[in-house]
Amino acid sequence: MSETRDIVCQPLTAQAFAPFGDVLEVSGEPDKLINAGLCGRYHDLAKLDFGRDGRAGISLFDAQPRSLPYMLDLLECHPEGSQAFLPMTQHPFLVIVSQSALSRPQAFLTAPGQGINLHRGTWHGVLTPLHAPGLFAVIDRIGETANLQEHRLDLPWRIVAG
Amino acid sequence: MSETRDIVCQPLTAQAFAPFGDVLEVSGEPDKLINAGLCGRYHDLAKLDFGRDGRAGISLFDAQPRSLPYMLDLLECHPEGSQAFLPMTQHPFLVIVSQSALSRPQAFLTAPGQGINLHRGTWHGVLTPLHAPGLFAVIDRIGETANLQEHRLDLPWRIVAG
Repeated sequence: MSETRDIVCQPLTAQAFAPFGDVLEVSGEPDKLINAGLCGRYHDLAKLDFGRDGRAGISLFDAQPRSLPYMLDLLECHPEGSQAFLPMTQHPFLVIVSQSALSRPQAFLTAPGQGINLHRGTWHGVLTPLHAPGLFAVIDRIGETANLQEHRLDLPWRIVAG
Repeated sequence: MSETRDIVCQPLTAQAFAPFGDVLEVSGEPDKLINAGLCGRYHDLAKLDFGRDGRAGISLFDAQPRSLPYMLDLLECHPEGSQAFLPMTQHPFLVIVSQSALSRPQAFLTAPGQGINLHRGTWHGVLTPLHAPGLFAVIDRIGETANLQEHRLDLPWRIVAG
């Protein structure tokens, strides 16, 4: 029945996202006040991991906006490193993650000001902004060896608004 | 004479900023099209350097907006690592850099979608957004040892709009 293929977006929270990665956001009091008290530093929020042979890099992704409902037919994973996405706009975006390539995925909608860091090996959907410009800073592994697994779904999931 | 202490903001360009760091922006064709052509990857844009004893971390900075003219009375530098600032909004921000603690600084105004990476050891002003929220992703060195030098200016510089 088609409705069993529906996945309803949930608000992104650190607790719900913990099995998959880190939510990067300013929440509560800063870890440190710097610059004569004019700047709060929320310190070292992501569990970064670039494997044995990799290093950290900063890239920019410019992705075409999608809309809901969104048909999910591809999952991917980076076995050699974590991957963080920081939106360079205040628009929410769609985050899809899964415990395995064959599990039922979960979908989250970010709030303005939230980024994510996918832990090494987390299965996820491709970058899916919902608004233009779909501009993100991406901190991930730079390395010479392969770091992408893809799993195409025979039967797509349908991601719907909450 | 007071006008000699004035520094006029220039637009931020990769060429003008090259002595101090990298401009992180989507410019020209992407290095790679990913996600079935729906996302452009501008690859590995920053010269990251976290020293011998450091590692990369992602922090969030929440800074109070300033306005122009801005009185610059403090320069700082991080001798042990690079420091990248990616705005999580589309607002321009003010970037102040200097060849040394005693040189005449230069001031740049970013365009929407531009971030920066200060190379290790670059003297710079503190984070100066011009709009709220002053929210930035910061990729810099995480380490146990000191990584901050400050130089307070007896005579401030006055940063003015272009």
